Amino acid sequence: MKKLIRPLVEGLHAYVPGEQPKIPGLIKLNTNENPYPPSPKVLRAVKAAVDGRLRLYPPPTAHLLRERLATLHGCKPENVIIGNGSDELLSMAVRAFVEPGTGLAQWFSPSYSLYPVIVRQHGATSGSAPLEADFSLPSPAALRKSPDWSFDASLTFVTTPNAPSGRAYAAKELEALCRALQGVVILDEAYVDFAPESAMKLHRLPNVLVSRTFSKGFSLCFQRVGYFVGPAPLIAALDKIRDSYNVNGLGQVAALATLDDLPYYRRCAQKIIATRKRLTEELTRLGFDVLPSVTNFIFAKPPKLPAKQWLAELRKRKILVRWFDYPATRDRLRITIGTDAEARAVVRAAKQILVR
Amino acid sequence: MKKLIRPLVEGLHAYVPGEQPKIPGLIKLNTNENPYPPSPKVLRAVKAAVDGRLRLYPPPTAHLLRERLATLHGCKPENVIIGNGSDELLSMAVRAFVEPGTGLAQWFSPSYSLYPVIVRQHGATSGSAPLEADFSLPSPAALRKSPDWSFDASLTFVTTPNAPSGRAYAAKELEALCRALQGVVILDEAYVDFAPESAMKLHRLPNVLVSRTFSKGFSLCFQRVGYFVGPAPLIAALDKIRDSYNVNGLGQVAALATLDDLPYYRRCAQKIIATRKRLTEELTRLGFDVLPSVTNFIFAKPPKLPAKQWLAELRKRKILVRWFDYPATRDRLRITIGTDAEARAVVRAAKQILVR
Repeated sequence: MKKLIRPLVEGLHAYVPGEQPKIPGLIKLNTNENPYPPSPKVLRAVKAAVDGRLRLYPPPTAHLLRERLATLHGCKPENVIIGNGSDELLSMAVRAFVEPGTGLAQWFSPSYSLYPVIVRQHGATSGSAPLEADFSLPSPAALRKSPDWSFDASLTFVTTPNAPSGRAYAAKELEALCRALQGVVILDEAYVDFAPESAMKLHRLPNVLVSRTFSKGFSLCFQRVGYFVGPAPLIAALDKIRDSYNVNGLGQVAALATLDDLPYYRRCAQKIIATRKRLTEELTRLGFDVLPSVTNFIFAKPPKLPAKQWLAELRKRKILVRWFDYPATRDRLRITIGTDAEARAVVRAAKQILVR
Repeated sequence: MKKLIRPLVEGLHAYVPGEQPKIPGLIKLNTNENPYPPSPKVLRAVKAAVDGRLRLYPPPTAHLLRERLATLHGCKPENVIIGNGSDELLSMAVRAFVEPGTGLAQWFSPSYSLYPVIVRQHGATSGSAPLEADFSLPSPAALRKSPDWSFDASLTFVTTPNAPSGRAYAAKELEALCRALQGVVILDEAYVDFAPESAMKLHRLPNVLVSRTFSKGFSLCFQRVGYFVGPAPLIAALDKIRDSYNVNGLGQVAALATLDDLPYYRRCAQKIIATRKRLTEELTRLGFDVLPSVTNFIFAKPPKLPAKQWLAELRKRKILVRWFDYPATRDRLRITIGTDAEARAVVRAAKQILVR
């Protein structure tokens, strides 16, 4: 029998998402989930939709949701595409804009660890330029001199605010970068709902797609709804390779109801921002080097023990955080901002570990 | 600015799914949805899961659902992969098993109109051999002589029972075909829940994947859950290119609850089969040529007027059916089997159209 699997695919390693363990009493601060539930109105709307209509296909182009998001962002429905989570759209963007083989997709390192996975899946070429030591963006002038960066890349991912650092980038700085790049740029704003500034207006540039998700700011990870806003020709190209019923129906219902109750989510974000401030202060007092964050997580270098050991010690105390084993990240922990009680538990555990 | 979109993608036409119009009183028999709601137990289970947990990511590998399906089909969880509907898995199979460019994916024509779309999206080569005039499979001997067929194709799709004809193929005949093919074969059993026989056991062959869906037999189109069963190496290859959280959480909940109430769905299928028999008899009496169907739809050649005109006349009477504009299909209508009342409405409308 001939070889059944493409050699490219044989050679891949699957993306490793953060663990989703079911341990009673576990404090789960490893995948940047929102600690607060969806709004009661959203839960009511979803429950009310659970009836015989589940037998029917969902709206294939999610037109109602696209119309609502277009109104929210001051654009037209043809500037919006909905995905089965923004992850699906990121992967589709690689397939729509990057030629397999020589086509180049690039990003700043460290950022979302999914990017290299989806570029390898497509058999395209990966590139990445290191962020500055403080996780700020290199200047266009520095990038022009960098052997790791190409202003001609077919696709550039910019996680903004950055993950895992939690750092903000100014819209003005992003605009200069987008204007200098010749290919498509995705501004991946997964965490923007916790930040003071968005670069959404840059979707008016002909090469910029802004990626958003209902997972983080809107507490809907379970339901897989994300979207891109951008120029109609780029959105149309993505639509041509979209699975015809890619967004499940209850996810569409939940997302629509979410947009009816945005003040609830702003209050949740304010609580998370307040907890972030307190946790940053407390951990700093204990000797952690905590980067300033505009997201729902912090990226902190723990004192005394290596970060990997902190990961294990915290886990022993039923606190799960995330550690990335790369040179630029392995001395830090990414800690999701949970409730105040969860933040207090982190501080208590840290104190115990320090006096061991 | 350089060209932003891949020429391959620029040249694509998006797949056109059957309409999902919202017309009050419409009898929707165009997309093969089940006329009966999910079981009350499924609706209760889904409602009970709509709470604060929506903020969390769903199980990334749908392990509970894979375990249950493995038990059902007498295999192991590593023989099962869950998709965002089986459509997602069909598309992933093209990417995992077919080289872009010269790699060949083939099918029998007519069958599911999505296949050419997903092969073109991948930039691979499409092939199709015509079914016999009665929509039966050509014999391996005939295929060996056919210029339209390659036993070396990287991927072969077989819709079984066939759509749009509704015809059954014997597992024995399929086995001979699968054994003769050198590449991967997908037996697409989307409609098998209404048929007397399944070819599921063929998943034990090293090159065969059996595709199933919760959409049709289990009334869950809205929730997007499908799966493949097959050899562990092929499933592992698909898993490597799977989006990490590809199956929404409430869909997983619904599918698990469905497996707890299979007798309910067998009763629904029996009702649909009884309605199919009655509708076939009544339309035959009116002069329709109705192919024998083992699915939840019939493929019927209407009398007197062209099928396209019947489509329009039925629509005027608020009955939506499907018409495919290809040489082998354009003299027929595909009519989904709805409730008995819906079937009676079709017969009434047909009588009106005939006496016009």
